[in-house]
Amino acid sequence: MADQKPLIVVTNDDGITSHGIRTLIEIMQKLGTVVVVAPNAPQSGMGHAITIANPLRLYPSDIFGDTIAYECSGTPADCVKLAKHHVLKDRAPDLVVSGINHGYNTSISVLYSGTMSAAIEAAIEGIPAIGFSLGDFSRQPDFSHVRDHVEQIVRQVLENGLDKGVALNVNFPPRAAEDIRGIRVCRQANAKWQEVFDERRDPHGRRYFWLDGDFVNFDTHAEDTDVYAVENNYTSVVPCQYDLTAYKTAETIRGWF
Amino acid sequence: MADQKPLIVVTNDDGITSHGIRTLIEIMQKLGTVVVVAPNAPQSGMGHAITIANPLRLYPSDIFGDTIAYECSGTPADCVKLAKHHVLKDRAPDLVVSGINHGYNTSISVLYSGTMSAAIEAAIEGIPAIGFSLGDFSRQPDFSHVRDHVEQIVRQVLENGLDKGVALNVNFPPRAAEDIRGIRVCRQANAKWQEVFDERRDPHGRRYFWLDGDFVNFDTHAEDTDVYAVENNYTSVVPCQYDLTAYKTAETIRGWF
Repeated sequence: MADQKPLIVVTNDDGITSHGIRTLIEIMQKLGTVVVVAPNAPQSGMGHAITIANPLRLYPSDIFGDTIAYECSGTPADCVKLAKHHVLKDRAPDLVVSGINHGYNTSISVLYSGTMSAAIEAAIEGIPAIGFSLGDFSRQPDFSHVRDHVEQIVRQVLENGLDKGVALNVNFPPRAAEDIRGIRVCRQANAKWQEVFDERRDPHGRRYFWLDGDFVNFDTHAEDTDVYAVENNYTSVVPCQYDLTAYKTAETIRGWF
Repeated sequence: MADQKPLIVVTNDDGITSHGIRTLIEIMQKLGTVVVVAPNAPQSGMGHAITIANPLRLYPSDIFGDTIAYECSGTPADCVKLAKHHVLKDRAPDLVVSGINHGYNTSISVLYSGTMSAAIEAAIEGIPAIGFSLGDFSRQPDFSHVRDHVEQIVRQVLENGLDKGVALNVNFPPRAAEDIRGIRVCRQANAKWQEVFDERRDPHGRRYFWLDGDFVNFDTHAEDTDVYAVENNYTSVVPCQYDLTAYKTAETIRGWF
């Protein structure tokens, strides 16, 4: 049918009960038919993990009322696979959206992010996909100001599609709506986490470690990065691809063998 | 000291007791001083996951005799972080090698692979890194024929270094040494797993799923891919980068906002 509403799969990595996914579902319901398949527990930092050594559980959930929803024991990438190949019986969704993540996924965090792995998994499946993240780690952040940008970006993708194999990584600064200066298309900043391991002892005297660290941006003078954008009150959009080949290096090392 | 041996960190994703890491350690001991930090249990399919919601355990291990070794409760990426920032007290290793994985990590598998996430984590840390995988999933594969290629590739990297932010993804076909035709530098094949979920019921009558599927190569006519190389009895080498930005798409969508 020409006037059929777009089919939109919603997932995340903070878990199905988080405020971020509830906000994203509310916005998507204005734009299409929504099916939710999301983790039953937090999956932050899961990167592009998939569940191959353990069975997966998938149960219907009524926490979003009439909206079709499932909670899954697996990772965000598992959720996308289950949505496409089991829940939708291989009917391809028109869009997969992931988030809204509680916390930034700018720069190198795209690699560790379950939010973005869900979007990239959808891109591998040939489905246009967007991961949304807000730079606020609290459990109840204020999402009110991001709604217009989410809707604007999703409408563009539904209308124009995305290049094959590409997913968008969208990050919102935690600012009031009136302080946001607009949307900027960026590149991934060259940055890393400078890790510190916090060493402690458990009640039995055995050592354990907490991973901790500081974010270090090596692109401090560049104005075309996602980190620059959010630090200057723009919403950042980075198109991400899953072909990791470093073509220039390939030319260099071809002479080695 | 000018004649100081290179410091080589060895890790993997199949776990510290696997045959693949033992083989890799034996080869590396000819080329440098080896420090092992590897998962205490299989971590296949963990992608670039890191452990942020749970504490990490790290214990010394004597399973490799005099070789310094630690077993870690975390992911392959955690192991690299712990090796650099805790075990080596921020002395940068000259090389991080990961594997030898039991099973291919060609094409799209680079994203799901704990083996390659360890190598890419090292690249983020600015350390030259290589992930090695053999196309044989058995617990006791025959590694005899890969030794020469591992050594040849590692010597090139130790002598020439690698471009910043690049790690090598090396895959060996499961063939006898005399059938291997050489080493080819390739690009990541455009392929995916076509998932099938195997639905079962547990003894309590509740449904569960096993992730399963077939590998589908969309690059069947290309001769420059890693999948083509291993299928034609070459060892494949793909340089991988962690900047995921799709620069061409960025140009296209800049007009959207």
